[in-house]
Amino acid sequence: MRTFAKRNFAPSQIRRLLEPGPIVLVSSAWQGATNIMTMGWHTVMEFEPSLVGCIIAEGNHSHHMIKLSGECVINVPTYDLAKTVVGIGNCSGAEVDKFKAFKLTASAAQRVKAPLIKECYANLECKLVDAALVASYNFFIFEVVKARAATAPKVPRTMHYRGNGAFMLSGREVSMRAMFRPENL
Amino acid sequence: MRTFAKRNFAPSQIRRLLEPGPIVLVSSAWQGATNIMTMGWHTVMEFEPSLVGCIIAEGNHSHHMIKLSGECVINVPTYDLAKTVVGIGNCSGAEVDKFKAFKLTASAAQRVKAPLIKECYANLECKLVDAALVASYNFFIFEVVKARAATAPKVPRTMHYRGNGAFMLSGREVSMRAMFRPENL
Repeated sequence: MRTFAKRNFAPSQIRRLLEPGPIVLVSSAWQGATNIMTMGWHTVMEFEPSLVGCIIAEGNHSHHMIKLSGECVINVPTYDLAKTVVGIGNCSGAEVDKFKAFKLTASAAQRVKAPLIKECYANLECKLVDAALVASYNFFIFEVVKARAATAPKVPRTMHYRGNGAFMLSGREVSMRAMFRPENL
Repeated sequence: MRTFAKRNFAPSQIRRLLEPGPIVLVSSAWQGATNIMTMGWHTVMEFEPSLVGCIIAEGNHSHHMIKLSGECVINVPTYDLAKTVVGIGNCSGAEVDKFKAFKLTASAAQRVKAPLIKECYANLECKLVDAALVASYNFFIFEVVKARAATAPKVPRTMHYRGNGAFMLSGREVSMRAMFRPENL
């Protein structure tokens, strides 16, 4: 399976990866077990500290692992992992060792115990910093404490879920930089 | 400017519009004035009730109008409105009447006083249902109480912001429906 050469990526800039809205793979670890889930409901919340809010439904095996460990890694997959992404979303970590079943490589993270998924374009190491809305909405607020992203291609071919089994693939990039006030970039 | 023929869209299905992560235009009304802002930090939070969480920074003129009125409309623009989207994000409603300046048509909404933007592909009428995280994170939780979307094209050519003035345009659609368990669609 494809892997990427990666370098450190400023946590304050992860909006460049997440704001376009890709489906992501969330990896976690708790009491010797690891898991991965597919997630599409997330938003950047702040540049610095680098905050990301996510819905992780209670029915997901990962919900409890992340709540109890207070950590996860948000991994950004590209289209070449499409079958893996859908496969991961359609089975439960309660029954399946997903790293093994989907032949993914668990790499050690630097700041969290949850493993990185080596085959993904980017890996964002996250600490749970606010669980106030977990009971009411399953809404977790994470701080990205360390990030790495591929050096090439410049922009990843990401998958964006539309529901009903359909994905939009990321298309061409246009720069409208000349129209922006510098403070609004 | 292009307009769309629209029909009612089930609020419980608006993930089909928002989960792919498009930049949106948020319209609001308060004390006789209207405003529009460009927003990229949002996430679907629940199907039913149909909940959407958004970051609307306090520096935005819209922040106060939405907090005080408890309402807004989330409008989904397509690429043909690109210059309008960027222009709206680069001026303030404190100084500019944006509907007038950008020649957009304010249509009456059914469930909120905030106006719809007629030239957008979809219009989601929203009521603020939880402001608990507004003071701490500028995070607003809205319920979509009424939605309308264009009947054609089947999927919109949306813009997805990457920061630094660059947008990803939505690309081709792939169906992986056959791989899904029905309950996971």
